[in-house]
Amino acid sequence: MISYLRRISHLFNKQLAKEKTFAKSIANITGQTPINLNLYKLAVCHTSAAKEDKLGVRSSNERLEYLGDAILGAVIAEFLFKKFPYKDEGFLTEIRSRIVNRESLNKLGKKIGLNKIVEFNPGRGGNTHKSLYGDALEALVGAVYLDKGFKSCRKFILTRLLQPHFDLNEIIENNLNFKSVLIEWAQKESKDIKFVIIKEVGSIHHKEFTAQVLIEDEPVSTGTGFSKKKAEQAAAEKACQIREIK
Amino acid sequence: MISYLRRISHLFNKQLAKEKTFAKSIANITGQTPINLNLYKLAVCHTSAAKEDKLGVRSSNERLEYLGDAILGAVIAEFLFKKFPYKDEGFLTEIRSRIVNRESLNKLGKKIGLNKIVEFNPGRGGNTHKSLYGDALEALVGAVYLDKGFKSCRKFILTRLLQPHFDLNEIIENNLNFKSVLIEWAQKESKDIKFVIIKEVGSIHHKEFTAQVLIEDEPVSTGTGFSKKKAEQAAAEKACQIREIK
Repeated sequence: MISYLRRISHLFNKQLAKEKTFAKSIANITGQTPINLNLYKLAVCHTSAAKEDKLGVRSSNERLEYLGDAILGAVIAEFLFKKFPYKDEGFLTEIRSRIVNRESLNKLGKKIGLNKIVEFNPGRGGNTHKSLYGDALEALVGAVYLDKGFKSCRKFILTRLLQPHFDLNEIIENNLNFKSVLIEWAQKESKDIKFVIIKEVGSIHHKEFTAQVLIEDEPVSTGTGFSKKKAEQAAAEKACQIREIK
Repeated sequence: MISYLRRISHLFNKQLAKEKTFAKSIANITGQTPINLNLYKLAVCHTSAAKEDKLGVRSSNERLEYLGDAILGAVIAEFLFKKFPYKDEGFLTEIRSRIVNRESLNKLGKKIGLNKIVEFNPGRGGNTHKSLYGDALEALVGAVYLDKGFKSCRKFILTRLLQPHFDLNEIIENNLNFKSVLIEWAQKESKDIKFVIIKEVGSIHHKEFTAQVLIEDEPVSTGTGFSKKKAEQAAAEKACQIREIK
């Protein structure tokens, strides 16, 4: 009986030590003491490592990732909105997508050490998943939001993710010009490409233009804007998406 | 001199009455007393009605729309996350996009009376803009967020927009099946369509599948999922986007 109790106590202490280490890791990453540790455990659990609960439900970080993605987008949107009071929404959207994208989040996830705590099962497709750490990072944002509320989560995003790991000046200078991307692609692929203004609405001083992209004389996309250049950029961006040109 | 002062005073009073009426409209719509009225004035100002300020900058609701869109997405994401604890992220994403989309927001914008206060210039493309009121609604969300903070903005979204105007049961029952949408389209257009599983990764009990959609034997899109059905749905959804099929 005593040896049985001793074994139970040993297992319990071992589990406790493990939890403490995990809580410390989370505190190191987020800068905040976690309250509901289960949320964070879920955040670092990839689908491939999901275990069934008593109800037969397999829980992984995918739902938290969905939530965290939305919170992250909102916090970065507000940050850029306030940082650049004279930039238009096209600029803000573009800069946000350069910060928050699969590749950059995956890199960042590794950088902040998620690769040390994310659980996955290589045999179940876990290690072939390209954005394992980016997804876990979004899930972590979701966990912090649920555990500590919006303000604390925003603080985590801004002071632990954005400010230390992104050089905004560099991001902005690395200017993406969709029209030139498209033209380069067309030259490489020996395709004929045209940009045509197909519609103009409004008075002389404030017209809205609609541009169309034609590849091999086939209309691919249209875009609108309050200048010909903006309309062409919008159309070119869509064409790049549709034809999956990067 | 006296008549000049009287005129000034008259103009001042008129402007004051106008501001009061506007503040009341905003309070009626949001359920909250506005503090910084300029934010709301900006929110209801379409690009076509934008005036130049002293610095020569033309301000309209586009930046606020960008911010509001992100906040709205986050609040709806959280609402659905908590409302449906056993639904996966695919379900949550789908339901959110049925609530927050151009068409539904535009309708909602009109319903809550934004058509009475949005400023636009028909001569400058204002009335040709399809989502005038939906954009203004997103901008209004942005304004409430900046004026009153996250909690108040969430309250506005949930109690004034979501709960009174959306029937979640109806939205969920109106099940969108992208594969069947695509098959219907193909039949109508007499196109040959195929769904092929092109990749399987993982162990027997937990495989990740990649499905491909072929239209007239031309690969159009791929999608992945932890079941063949999910992978096909993901691929079908992408194909619908690429070919602009609704």
